[in-house]
Amino acid sequence: MGKSEYTINFKVEGGDPVSVTGLSNETALDIAKRAGVVIDAPCGGNGTCGKCRIKLVSGEVSGGKTPHITDVDTAEGWRLACGIKPASDIELFLPASAQAFQSRIRVTDFSGAREAAAFGSFRAALKELGFDGDHGLEKVNVELTAPSLEDALADRERVEAELAGKTGASRVKFSLNALRRLPLSLRSGAADSFGVTCVTRREGDDGGITVLDVLPASKDCPLYGLAIDIGTTTISMLLVNLETGDPVTAASGGNAQIRYGADVINRIIESTKPGGLERLRNAVINECLAPLIRRLCLGAGIGTEQIYRAAIAGNTTMTHLVMGVPGEFIRLEPYIPAFFKTDALGAGSLGLPLNPEAQVLLAPSVGSYVGGDITAGVFSSMIYDKDTMSLFIDLGTNGELVFGGKEFLMSCACSAGPAFEGGEISCGMRATNGAVEACSIDKDTMEPKLSVIGEAGEKPAGLCGSGLIDIIGELFQCGIINAKGKFNVAGKRIVKDEYGGQAYIVAFAADSASGKDIVLSEVDIDNFIRAKGAIFSAIRTMLAIVDMPQEAIDDVYVAGGIGSGIDIKHAILIGMFPNLPLEKFHYIGNTSLSGAYGMLVSERAAGQVAACAGAMTYLELSSHPSYMDEFVAACFLPHTDASLFAAQ
Amino acid sequence: MGKSEYTINFKVEGGDPVSVTGLSNETALDIAKRAGVVIDAPCGGNGTCGKCRIKLVSGEVSGGKTPHITDVDTAEGWRLACGIKPASDIELFLPASAQAFQSRIRVTDFSGAREAAAFGSFRAALKELGFDGDHGLEKVNVELTAPSLEDALADRERVEAELAGKTGASRVKFSLNALRRLPLSLRSGAADSFGVTCVTRREGDDGGITVLDVLPASKDCPLYGLAIDIGTTTISMLLVNLETGDPVTAASGGNAQIRYGADVINRIIESTKPGGLERLRNAVINECLAPLIRRLCLGAGIGTEQIYRAAIAGNTTMTHLVMGVPGEFIRLEPYIPAFFKTDALGAGSLGLPLNPEAQVLLAPSVGSYVGGDITAGVFSSMIYDKDTMSLFIDLGTNGELVFGGKEFLMSCACSAGPAFEGGEISCGMRATNGAVEACSIDKDTMEPKLSVIGEAGEKPAGLCGSGLIDIIGELFQCGIINAKGKFNVAGKRIVKDEYGGQAYIVAFAADSASGKDIVLSEVDIDNFIRAKGAIFSAIRTMLAIVDMPQEAIDDVYVAGGIGSGIDIKHAILIGMFPNLPLEKFHYIGNTSLSGAYGMLVSERAAGQVAACAGAMTYLELSSHPSYMDEFVAACFLPHTDASLFAAQ
Repeated sequence: MGKSEYTINFKVEGGDPVSVTGLSNETALDIAKRAGVVIDAPCGGNGTCGKCRIKLVSGEVSGGKTPHITDVDTAEGWRLACGIKPASDIELFLPASAQAFQSRIRVTDFSGAREAAAFGSFRAALKELGFDGDHGLEKVNVELTAPSLEDALADRERVEAELAGKTGASRVKFSLNALRRLPLSLRSGAADSFGVTCVTRREGDDGGITVLDVLPASKDCPLYGLAIDIGTTTISMLLVNLETGDPVTAASGGNAQIRYGADVINRIIESTKPGGLERLRNAVINECLAPLIRRLCLGAGIGTEQIYRAAIAGNTTMTHLVMGVPGEFIRLEPYIPAFFKTDALGAGSLGLPLNPEAQVLLAPSVGSYVGGDITAGVFSSMIYDKDTMSLFIDLGTNGELVFGGKEFLMSCACSAGPAFEGGEISCGMRATNGAVEACSIDKDTMEPKLSVIGEAGEKPAGLCGSGLIDIIGELFQCGIINAKGKFNVAGKRIVKDEYGGQAYIVAFAADSASGKDIVLSEVDIDNFIRAKGAIFSAIRTMLAIVDMPQEAIDDVYVAGGIGSGIDIKHAILIGMFPNLPLEKFHYIGNTSLSGAYGMLVSERAAGQVAACAGAMTYLELSSHPSYMDEFVAACFLPHTDASLFAAQ
Repeated sequence: MGKSEYTINFKVEGGDPVSVTGLSNETALDIAKRAGVVIDAPCGGNGTCGKCRIKLVSGEVSGGKTPHITDVDTAEGWRLACGIKPASDIELFLPASAQAFQSRIRVTDFSGAREAAAFGSFRAALKELGFDGDHGLEKVNVELTAPSLEDALADRERVEAELAGKTGASRVKFSLNALRRLPLSLRSGAADSFGVTCVTRREGDDGGITVLDVLPASKDCPLYGLAIDIGTTTISMLLVNLETGDPVTAASGGNAQIRYGADVINRIIESTKPGGLERLRNAVINECLAPLIRRLCLGAGIGTEQIYRAAIAGNTTMTHLVMGVPGEFIRLEPYIPAFFKTDALGAGSLGLPLNPEAQVLLAPSVGSYVGGDITAGVFSSMIYDKDTMSLFIDLGTNGELVFGGKEFLMSCACSAGPAFEGGEISCGMRATNGAVEACSIDKDTMEPKLSVIGEAGEKPAGLCGSGLIDIIGELFQCGIINAKGKFNVAGKRIVKDEYGGQAYIVAFAADSASGKDIVLSEVDIDNFIRAKGAIFSAIRTMLAIVDMPQEAIDDVYVAGGIGSGIDIKHAILIGMFPNLPLEKFHYIGNTSLSGAYGMLVSERAAGQVAACAGAMTYLELSSHPSYMDEFVAACFLPHTDASLFAAQ
């Protein structure tokens, strides 16, 4: 069959309509990607997640049959964008929910009380350890004798001589940016003055400096830095006054790469297609980082060129993609990244809108699935420096764990999958407005009491990770579901679902934002149990390797944006976290971002992050013989070995 | 008066027509510049050079009166593009002559016999001095054990360890480019091989190296370098195999900045207008260097990314403009450049299509009018190392002179003006096809015998610098003009010119390419005498300062593209060069380019160029009291003091 060309009109809820030509052998999702129309497709378009629901308004399509769309929905025009191809000119309606990641995502940016406290303790610890202000940047004022016919030294050489004398530098280099600004900056002051403020960076250990920028002598202009956490789902950044170390303002947003899949595997697959690597790099640099940086600077009333240093923490795949380095061997046995560490990179070569001479540091990785977000996190948690045994858990799009202390550090990643972010859950969603983030259930009436993200009176639209933990924990505690996650009892909220199992109605259609029931089915619960089982069995496997009981864990540090809403009690109740006294658990916020902050303000801290990476061994769980048994045993509520969760 | 908008159609001889909107307050030259239509305007559009002759085919214009256009010409439609503004829709015809710089310009690229000989001796001298191959670049093959689940080191760390062992490097950095290419290069060979060829550069003195590139191990790929001479008028470059030091191929072309003026002053003025600096940078980078580099590489059958190092020599203004550094204070008292020297720059930050990690060296300047072309030239001439006294003369768009040897080096620039390139000469032109480049005149018949650049039988179109020297020398020697440059005798070739003076018909209309008489008027001769007087008086002033007679000059080294065609005998005869035995004169070709070649192949040579710059004092002629007297005295044929040119 040949290809036919049709006109595809996208009507985007809350956005401008887009018209584009599409081929009869392209899916609506592919056409949308090509046209820059954002449709959330966590599974990357393979039909499994059911999130790319759009409405066919007019025209003919081929395909469309999927268990994710009921007959009623089909009649209303609902289709999955990944499952249909045009068979005529068509018009498609994109509801706001199909573009979910673009909406305001609640991330940990140190503005919440718990996060602010964690960050405050971290800063105090940094200062105590002397990781403070040794970022190598300095502002130096030089006042010069104005040139004359008798003293016709060039501007650069005139400044160089004065600067070398004043700083004792063994060597003074000038960046291209500094040379470009030098002649006018020198002559911008009063007629009788001939001076300039140099922004310098120490280079190497032999006392050399490089002049990054030259500013008019009269201008008071603090040096700024930027700490960046590039997550698979969300991106957070912190603008920092490098002279005081104080955070100035924070910003966050969704990672636009999500249109190529929710997890790193789908991103890597997309990156291997023709032009794919550049598309993914472009998505994170030009659609996310650049606009966020510009917005941040606009808000702070500074120019982007005032940012002279940046530190990025991200998982191994994210750091590959942001640099445009092929990461395809990360997902192929034996799972080899192109690099663990990087040398300082130029902002210009990365394409980031900072001062063109700014250096960008990247937190080093330890393995294909334990990246810079974790090494930065381990630094931030300070567990590397403790005589006691700590367990560090970062719950993002994936789950990474580090166990140990001063003596050893063992790290691993478990494919918890997207359930904590609402993926593979029929009414799952990310922690955005409308998400149920907490819940208690009355044992007698089975009526839930919901806490919904958003304005007061916000109607529930779906269930996010922390809400799922609460609901499943409460259903289990109330005896509404059994240890296998199956419903035990009947009631007006217990209904049959379309797959023949049962489901719990969290919110009735009349009370929900979508006008449909928000349900949690046995299939959903099963998916979630697998996710929590992956975390718990990883902990068990690590303990087994060092032959330690779970009581040996002195502290559990829970990190990650997804972790902030977690109710520890419920998480223990369902067997996700080990049954330890609650006081052993510490929520320490977005440690990827706080670790990046440490690297930003201190070269020695950056060195310590590298040392942490060097000290961490990487455990490939999938190749460990007992892991699969542990995983199967953990896929119960709370566990097949109930003694592990007996009341203490 | 308000502005009106008109449609301007340019009919370009030998090119595509261009249609653009023009305003009633814009000159045709400005409109052409904006539309990217090239019109040669050596004076920058101020009406003095008369070179931007175009033909008004239809429509009405305002302005147009100029002594450069005769009434007959006016009737034929000829106008100066800088002198007319549209008063209706207009159509303009651009003859090839108006785009002269675009045509093939004869430059010194070491292909001519004299140039090749000079370059050969220079290379031999470099080798003898050990300035050979120490460019710091190396290719290193590494063969590795392929990774496995048990040995999951990342690619970079695996190569790093092997490379450090093999080279003994104290520190191994990887460029972004190298990381981007690493994973696929490592896996491009046979299934059982896991290796790569690293292109490394030594960094600093402490044994560190940076990996610039990684190539598949099997690929035989020499390292290339590029030497570049950026002249005000022409640009030349030499592609060099860095492993052998052999030049591979050369290319040259006009400097497209010429549309903003023939001399550096007009370029600087243009650079201070809004967007002007970027326009000038763009003209030299994107219109000249980038296409020349691509053409050169295409011809050599290599990719531009195989060029790992470049060295540029150019005058002070050219180096400012190519880097995008404001040069406006070069032309304002006290004439201060932004820099003399630069640190090695990245090809990427300069916007040159080389390997993105290639370093670009620039020859350092000594003063606002003695630039890197001269320091590279002094290095190339090797006069800095001689016990004898040498005079180095570089005749390009300007004239620069260096006098001295091992003990001292004194440099100066004289505003010889554009006469050597045909500027300010009514039938003057650059040394392109059709230019009279040599001439002898029969004393009895006054008939000239012309040598014309181009194919056999090429008709004369105008007079270039070397032709002017010959014609004026012959006219003087034959007694046709007197010491003041005025005509002494009558004859069929001596006619009255339009300014009331007399002129010599070099070629009758019937024999000329333009179908018009090619004449040399007393005004032209006067302009030329000023130019040669500027050179000679500069030599005299330098000698006076060190209190030496001209006989103290042991050798005269004549450099520069314009110098290649000069007949030394005639140049002495007219009092341009000092009256020394002919064997003291050495033509040494384009030393700006050969000096850049030296910097390219040897770090120590680059260091020596910097040392030459440091050793050179800069003499500002205009501020020297005796210079003006010397200049006035030199504005005769050969000189007011005829004893200076008495037969030896």
